[in-house]
Amino acid sequence: MTTPAGLVTLTTDFGDGSSYVAAMKGAILAVNSAVHIIDLCHNIPPQDLTATAYFLAETVPFFPPRSIHAVVVDPAVGTERALLCIRWNEQWLLAPDNGCWTSLERHSAARGIEVYRLSESKYWAPAVSFTFHGRDILAPVAGHLSLGVAPDQLGRRVQEWVRLRLPEPERTSREVRGEVIRVDRFGNLITNITRGAIGDYHSVHVGGRNIPRWVQTYGDAEPGAVVALIGSCDLLEIAVVQGSAAERLGLGAGACVTVGQLEDS
Amino acid sequence: MTTPAGLVTLTTDFGDGSSYVAAMKGAILAVNSAVHIIDLCHNIPPQDLTATAYFLAETVPFFPPRSIHAVVVDPAVGTERALLCIRWNEQWLLAPDNGCWTSLERHSAARGIEVYRLSESKYWAPAVSFTFHGRDILAPVAGHLSLGVAPDQLGRRVQEWVRLRLPEPERTSREVRGEVIRVDRFGNLITNITRGAIGDYHSVHVGGRNIPRWVQTYGDAEPGAVVALIGSCDLLEIAVVQGSAAERLGLGAGACVTVGQLEDS
Amino acid sequence: MTTPAGLVTLTTDFGDGSSYVAAMKGAILAVNSAVHIIDLCHNIPPQDLTATAYFLAETVPFFPPRSIHAVVVDPAVGTERALLCIRWNEQWLLAPDNGCWTSLERHSAARGIEVYRLSESKYWAPAVSFTFHGRDILAPVAGHLSLGVAPDQLGRRVQEWVRLRLPEPERTSREVRGEVIRVDRFGNLITNITRGAIGDYHSVHVGGRNIPRWVQTYGDAEPGAVVALIGSCDLLEIAVVQGSAAERLGLGAGACVTVGQLEDS
Repeated sequence: MTTPAGLVTLTTDFGDGSSYVAAMKGAILAVNSAVHIIDLCHNIPPQDLTATAYFLAETVPFFPPRSIHAVVVDPAVGTERALLCIRWNEQWLLAPDNGCWTSLERHSAARGIEVYRLSESKYWAPAVSFTFHGRDILAPVAGHLSLGVAPDQLGRRVQEWVRLRLPEPERTSREVRGEVIRVDRFGNLITNITRGAIGDYHSVHVGGRNIPRWVQTYGDAEPGAVVALIGSCDLLEIAVVQGSAAERLGLGAGACVTVGQLEDS
Repeated sequence: MTTPAGLVTLTTDFGDGSSYVAAMKGAILAVNSAVHIIDLCHNIPPQDLTATAYFLAETVPFFPPRSIHAVVVDPAVGTERALLCIRWNEQWLLAPDNGCWTSLERHSAARGIEVYRLSESKYWAPAVSFTFHGRDILAPVAGHLSLGVAPDQLGRRVQEWVRLRLPEPERTSREVRGEVIRVDRFGNLITNITRGAIGDYHSVHVGGRNIPRWVQTYGDAEPGAVVALIGSCDLLEIAVVQGSAAERLGLGAGACVTVGQLEDS
Repeated sequence: MTTPAGLVTLTTDFGDGSSYVAAMKGAILAVNSAVHIIDLCHNIPPQDLTATAYFLAETVPFFPPRSIHAVVVDPAVGTERALLCIRWNEQWLLAPDNGCWTSLERHSAARGIEVYRLSESKYWAPAVSFTFHGRDILAPVAGHLSLGVAPDQLGRRVQEWVRLRLPEPERTSREVRGEVIRVDRFGNLITNITRGAIGDYHSVHVGGRNIPRWVQTYGDAEPGAVVALIGSCDLLEIAVVQGSAAERLGLGAGACVTVGQLEDS
């Protein structure tokens, strides 16, 4: 296969249909009009770095080498915070230095991480606004990177960067305690408790309620049943078959979830 | 024109900006990084096979030969339900065997239908989750199909598949009785009554109300007028000029619509 | 670089995930299956020409030469209104003749405007519906234009077209008076007052309130502060740091904004 023209994905909190996203697409294509632009998400909750981190962990690992991921969730735009070009498993991330990619640094598939601080303004828009570095810096840099510019031409390599404190499950001898990190469109409650962390602990409690049943997939129980399962990202998930666990249990992101020894329940 | 790198469209109920959609895009591109990915819809109502069927009938027929349409509305994911590769008019559909494409089977343009049951796991992700076959099976299969893998390499051809019962208009000597199948963003009520079914019947009743006026297009009547017309998919449609028929009449999908003989009104 | 296969962007009021958008994509690809399709926006408020004009002014100037922008906000579809092919700075717009591109005609970067009225039906769908010219005319014309058809083959050049009355700020010796033209997802109030119009006037009033502080970027003030700044499109913007100015001030599009002499405040 011939070398593709390059692949740039976009993850932002600008909102679907935002003119900010459209302007970024133009600014990328103005540098490399043959690049493929792929929308990942534009409705990250405004300025929510933790949600961004979870999103990237669930998606970036599935992309091929040389993919370029531009991430614009940037509450500190225009201040002294740096912009980074990050090499991750032969892929590239372009993002503000605010920890939004911490989840990938810790990801089981993480290899070959190198971080560069963008400083070479010849790869930026001629005039850089104070409030939209996504369009004026990250977008043109993504275009140049897709054309083969080497990362060390974009700025110098650095060894320090901002890391986000992501909630980690706690494990005691009697239980694993974690939390709901997001609710999907079906109302499934996705937690931060991995398959590996559960081990012999099997009694799931959430929102003052014991979840009686483990299944492999939603269709394994009757409609309306509340079930626990290991979801497609190897995380514990609480679901209601053909319904919404979020609605039924009245829970959302941040809700505490514990997995105890089976004899406890 | 040279052979394009391939075209894969996505239709899902995952929600706009879902990490599930993004992961599918990565999984397709990991197989064929040059393929064009086209978003069709990600806000099919959750697990709504009927809505999926109507959506596909309104869109797939407009695509060129060799388009590959991945459809992931899959309430029974992980159970025994099959996954299909369907040839339809030189295009391809990849979808669960749940009837979501019944509307295309019956479509006036339908030709050359062949159905294959996906079974050859060498075209799937190395590890297949129980809850996300869209990412782990359909996405990589779409990638391989776009690279030229023949459908009979994906699995054996089958002659039986699930069909959905879609509401059909009933015709008597005095009237045609159908229903609203969707409301568009303008509040237009789109029905399942075709231009052909109406024939000499011209008096439209919906929600206990007689619609007095037929027009060719919205701009043919004054703002605020309630009108009947044949829409762009050759279906009877109730509209309010520069307004919302859904709001004005308080009606939505499922509302009964009758078209009677003109002398009845 | 080789000539790309062409770039067609889409801006509509059809709604995200609309079957109308998907059908348009099919109709474009049916003419040129190698073209790149870029979604700009599908949630322009229904039939809102003013919002369309602002959106285009903020986005089109960032795109490269030969980009083709199909714009479908078309309240008068099917009536006598014309459809236009507009050359703007070596880019192309395809849009109804309803003034939705007036903002670009007046744009500081506007050069080389030529307008053609689409009339050559051999570049249209074989059957044109009365209610969906986006799919049946603009989409196939976009495909043909991307393949190199010259604009004067699409129809004759015209010298007259519809212009939209966009609200312009008024300037007196004591103040500049404008209005909020849109609210972004962060709740920032974007006005129609340009950096250049402000000059020596610096005291900002909006919604009966004096905005005490000018900053260069959001992060320059403490969380919760109400600030005025020149945003990324060189327009006056009212923001709340890490909050929503729209919510805090209870204001939206149409709200009056004045900038007075500093000694007035």
